[in-house]
Amino acid sequence: MTEFDLINKYISTQSLSRADVLEGIGDDCAILNIPETKSLAVSLDTLVEDVHFPANTTAYSIGYKSLAVNLSDLAATGAEPAWITLSLAMPEANEQWIKDFLRGVFDLADKYNVQLIGGDTTQGKLTISIQAHGFVDQPLLRSGAQTDDLIYVSGYLGDSVAGFEQFIPEDENNNVCITRFKRPEPRVELGLAITNIASSCIDISDGLVSDLGHVCKKSQKGAIIYLTDIPLSEEYCQYYKGRDYKKALSFGDDYELCFTVPKEKSHLLEALSTELGINLSCIGKITDSDSIQFVDAGGELVKLNKGYEHFNE
Amino acid sequence: MTEFDLINKYISTQSLSRADVLEGIGDDCAILNIPETKSLAVSLDTLVEDVHFPANTTAYSIGYKSLAVNLSDLAATGAEPAWITLSLAMPEANEQWIKDFLRGVFDLADKYNVQLIGGDTTQGKLTISIQAHGFVDQPLLRSGAQTDDLIYVSGYLGDSVAGFEQFIPEDENNNVCITRFKRPEPRVELGLAITNIASSCIDISDGLVSDLGHVCKKSQKGAIIYLTDIPLSEEYCQYYKGRDYKKALSFGDDYELCFTVPKEKSHLLEALSTELGINLSCIGKITDSDSIQFVDAGGELVKLNKGYEHFNE
Repeated sequence: MTEFDLINKYISTQSLSRADVLEGIGDDCAILNIPETKSLAVSLDTLVEDVHFPANTTAYSIGYKSLAVNLSDLAATGAEPAWITLSLAMPEANEQWIKDFLRGVFDLADKYNVQLIGGDTTQGKLTISIQAHGFVDQPLLRSGAQTDDLIYVSGYLGDSVAGFEQFIPEDENNNVCITRFKRPEPRVELGLAITNIASSCIDISDGLVSDLGHVCKKSQKGAIIYLTDIPLSEEYCQYYKGRDYKKALSFGDDYELCFTVPKEKSHLLEALSTELGINLSCIGKITDSDSIQFVDAGGELVKLNKGYEHFNE
Repeated sequence: MTEFDLINKYISTQSLSRADVLEGIGDDCAILNIPETKSLAVSLDTLVEDVHFPANTTAYSIGYKSLAVNLSDLAATGAEPAWITLSLAMPEANEQWIKDFLRGVFDLADKYNVQLIGGDTTQGKLTISIQAHGFVDQPLLRSGAQTDDLIYVSGYLGDSVAGFEQFIPEDENNNVCITRFKRPEPRVELGLAITNIASSCIDISDGLVSDLGHVCKKSQKGAIIYLTDIPLSEEYCQYYKGRDYKKALSFGDDYELCFTVPKEKSHLLEALSTELGINLSCIGKITDSDSIQFVDAGGELVKLNKGYEHFNE
């Protein structure tokens, strides 16, 4: 057995075992059953050291976050997570690292009843590619926003950038923001709960300005956003000494959901927020224009370049 | 738009469009429909420059082979190919390279009605990770071989190693062996045709000795192989100046199928071979022992170390 064979052995150590996995790891293909009435949702995300996470991030956190960003894509589609595959490139076969990494992946996977059904390991710069598979009835798409729909976001924006700026890789003394940066919580339950309420949805991985731009472009609409309504956490405001919303709007890496809701259904959201224990904020509405307008506390229009660039690309 | 955004744009240029792809590239997830009576087969293979293909291999051949090795896994399961995702790491964004690479992928994908439904590109050592999805009724597994089943292989073994040893990366003067090394043909039709005939199946990616070892291990059986019955091409014998079978048995990269057939069904294979235009050779049979025995022309047992090692790991 080579060192990399040894790693591939650890990949098959997850204890969780789903009934719809007829064959998991160990044959030419995994064989899987899909519920007859559902469609399959598939998302693929690749994370590279020094690009998507700082070097020396703990193996556990890298594993956890690599899965979280993929489950977040399933959440944004309103899909129920089921299986993942993992393709891992690493500079050398470090047995302890791989054990810690997989503990991070499996801790989050077990929480959402997700089984690893395939994986391979190669030598190279540390790169993690996870493909997540889920089931969906009525997928939430980016293209469904209608004029006058209200725009909501979950949680608080910007904690991730505040966490990134305070981050010391191997220090385990984490405040709220650092934890949200290292181990974001995918909004799986929220995505499932709004499939019959929201008209469109996206997860905020590139920043609100950019991601709302994708929704507007796909829906051929514009939007107006009230900056005073952007939810910022106490910890964020403390770190940046006030409501400095710019980083919260553009850094991304928050993995909250941004979704649009027809006005007549907006009354359902208060109960949902209470039920799930997730803050849901209305931050603006969809318009018939071809741009996103940002309005400050004094009612003045504010230009945020990055958003316009993305939107007009 | 960054250079890598530009590449991601090319990834969505395939003209083929399947009716079961409700959403392809461009939302948080791809949304896909599976036929109600079928299971999903998933295979994942990663190819790294200098490990899985020589540096300076043409972009077209890299694209073609990256997909071929994955379709070969579906073939070995008896699955009908449907969709792929692509995760590509490359040192720099070279527009011409990516165009040629995708032409190689799409030429083979179009042939088998396979649609690219997701992809991403990152900076790094040239690494191609493709995940293939297909539909299957009765999956062919490694574990189904029974004592006295006959062992068959498709095509000719060893052309790939002969091609590798003659290979000049950017020379387009290819003989049969070099073509088989650069652009192997996945045995998709054969895999589909033997789902009701074969008791087990694997594709020969690691070499017959190793791959038959996987079948024996999973089936808890042994095997006897008659070396005179190993199919070697004229071109292989010409290059190695005779029937030097050792490389043909251990190098791999052939992407032929090795499958076992109950004796009472073996009469079906001659017609199948004619119908598909694929050479099918009976090379031995499954035994009740715990090892693979190789018998030479004089009836003597030959020890092939690599095979025993793999089998006993």
